[in-house]
Amino acid sequence: MIPRTIAVVGASGAVGRECLSILETRRGPASWVAKDARILALASARSAGSRIPFDGRELTVSEMGERSLDGVDVAFFASGSDVARRFAPPAAAKGVLCIDKSSAFRDDPASPLAIPEVNPDVLAEVAGGRIVAVPNCSTIILLLPLDPIRRAFGLERIVVSTYQAASGAGAEAMRELEDQTRDVQAGRPATPRIFKEPCAFNVFSHDSRVDESTGRNVEEQKMESEARRIWRDPALQVCATCVRVPVLRGHTESITVTLRQPATEAEVRRVLAEAPGCRVVDDRRANTFPTPLRATGGDDVLVGRIRPDPTQEPDSRFEPGRRWRGFSLLVSGDQLRVGAALTAVRIVDRLTRGAAS
Amino acid sequence: MIPRTIAVVGASGAVGRECLSILETRRGPASWVAKDARILALASARSAGSRIPFDGRELTVSEMGERSLDGVDVAFFASGSDVARRFAPPAAAKGVLCIDKSSAFRDDPASPLAIPEVNPDVLAEVAGGRIVAVPNCSTIILLLPLDPIRRAFGLERIVVSTYQAASGAGAEAMRELEDQTRDVQAGRPATPRIFKEPCAFNVFSHDSRVDESTGRNVEEQKMESEARRIWRDPALQVCATCVRVPVLRGHTESITVTLRQPATEAEVRRVLAEAPGCRVVDDRRANTFPTPLRATGGDDVLVGRIRPDPTQEPDSRFEPGRRWRGFSLLVSGDQLRVGAALTAVRIVDRLTRGAAS
Repeated sequence: MIPRTIAVVGASGAVGRECLSILETRRGPASWVAKDARILALASARSAGSRIPFDGRELTVSEMGERSLDGVDVAFFASGSDVARRFAPPAAAKGVLCIDKSSAFRDDPASPLAIPEVNPDVLAEVAGGRIVAVPNCSTIILLLPLDPIRRAFGLERIVVSTYQAASGAGAEAMRELEDQTRDVQAGRPATPRIFKEPCAFNVFSHDSRVDESTGRNVEEQKMESEARRIWRDPALQVCATCVRVPVLRGHTESITVTLRQPATEAEVRRVLAEAPGCRVVDDRRANTFPTPLRATGGDDVLVGRIRPDPTQEPDSRFEPGRRWRGFSLLVSGDQLRVGAALTAVRIVDRLTRGAAS
Repeated sequence: MIPRTIAVVGASGAVGRECLSILETRRGPASWVAKDARILALASARSAGSRIPFDGRELTVSEMGERSLDGVDVAFFASGSDVARRFAPPAAAKGVLCIDKSSAFRDDPASPLAIPEVNPDVLAEVAGGRIVAVPNCSTIILLLPLDPIRRAFGLERIVVSTYQAASGAGAEAMRELEDQTRDVQAGRPATPRIFKEPCAFNVFSHDSRVDESTGRNVEEQKMESEARRIWRDPALQVCATCVRVPVLRGHTESITVTLRQPATEAEVRRVLAEAPGCRVVDDRRANTFPTPLRATGGDDVLVGRIRPDPTQEPDSRFEPGRRWRGFSLLVSGDQLRVGAALTAVRIVDRLTRGAAS
């Protein structure tokens, strides 16, 4: 399938713009984004009429409506769940392939939840008329480096603390971080708009709703439920603590895992060095490891601080070549790219593989 | 003992200034900081001659030298390890009580390593002529909330990821964060000075040296070795990942523990509500939890996101009143106060208890 018309819903948002910028670079004869493909930028009434630079020209944003996706082949939903819930099912019923970045269909058994590097098999039968759900950004950035480890050694439990950027809450939240930082530096009071807590020079527990009985917030629940669904492993244990940091668009995660089969550090490193969508950045001598700035604009999840966790062993002595059940990692990924728009586009890359050649 | 002369070594640094500001508020007839006590502000030649406001007047910083502590009763070392190593032992030999915030004497069996709320017993025999080591800031902020949990239920293992402020690297690092933030916002390149990595709008693995064989950095090693020494528990397991965030002076820590005896959430909350040096900030409905800004300037470690960790159980179902082996917490504390200067001053509070009344 070579789509003739591609739509981006929520085109004026942070993920929508990133999606357009990735489509722009994909454009060409060797790609499914044909040079003469029609690109529709759709958004709410508020953004309609605004212009977005695209491939040397400009796209005018149109207001999203019931008929907007008529005749569209592929629609990327970079909008909120409510918009996806309203417009994706009728569009799919008319044959549109809908790739949804919101959480609307992540629990829907009829819609595959896919990271193309991790569970491409769920995309095997997918074509026009289906909705494919893209996981939450924190889940993608967690699973890309852990998937090859899981394949090689099995995974029993994950303990993860996140350092999440403002971008996860959208373009307006990124502006809030910039504006508040300027206010604080000028000695003016910082007025929270999107986030309830001040975001400049501060760190706070993730702004999603906290379940009053379990104490887990929605972001933490997603990391567990999505990992279980993608890996088809309902026994997988994920202890997550999700926290926002004053960073614009790169998520970082401090991860400690328990393997099913013990591995040497060299074995874990070998597996990570070949992990698709990942790049090892791990120089102990130079103290150079993944950072959100280093990950920003890139296509890979950066993986570093790779080390055994001796606290999971009855005998914690370090010996060269020893096998360990526990390992720790620090990873960073661009939330807007690999955590969202790029993974959405890669799903279509996979679905159209070989189509252009 | 009511000291007549109190010295602060490293008075122009971030911890030194905080120490002076705490002594200022302590001053009075009911305190060991007598109204007419002499306060000496000492620092390197570079800062000598500068003035620090103190109690309505100004202290002139003198250059630290071999004879500077002659006649001093209590000296707070808020300097680097090299300065403490050079000047504290000869001062102690002359009878000065030295409270050292550096890492110089933390492994020295002759010097107690003390958090007064946690192991006051090591201060029992301490008087003039001794060096008391104050733990690392991350250790203090970890142990204050965990100590009462450990007393009540026992502690087997701690997994902790830190969100550490610039202040831990000193006043110059705080200025670097402010300057770099201004540079980035003005579109100028950010030039790293103290930190190797850019610190504005970024997150990076702690800047201390990384052990090339274990992969742990010095900050992470300290959290384990100091916790083991303070709690006299060489079997305690601490899996730490230390990370810097663009925050000025509050450290945050995401903690998951394994208890020796399972406890209900209500039991853990009860113990934390009474924990000395701690304050519970935990409102699930309002999503209000500890943040470094909320902790800044305060005397307590703020404790929140208190919740069971079901991933440590074979059966992870939530049931009211159930006992769990694992719990997670999010804590924040002012690195310069409770993480350093305030704990140093509280050591002298304890040593002089009842002396002023």
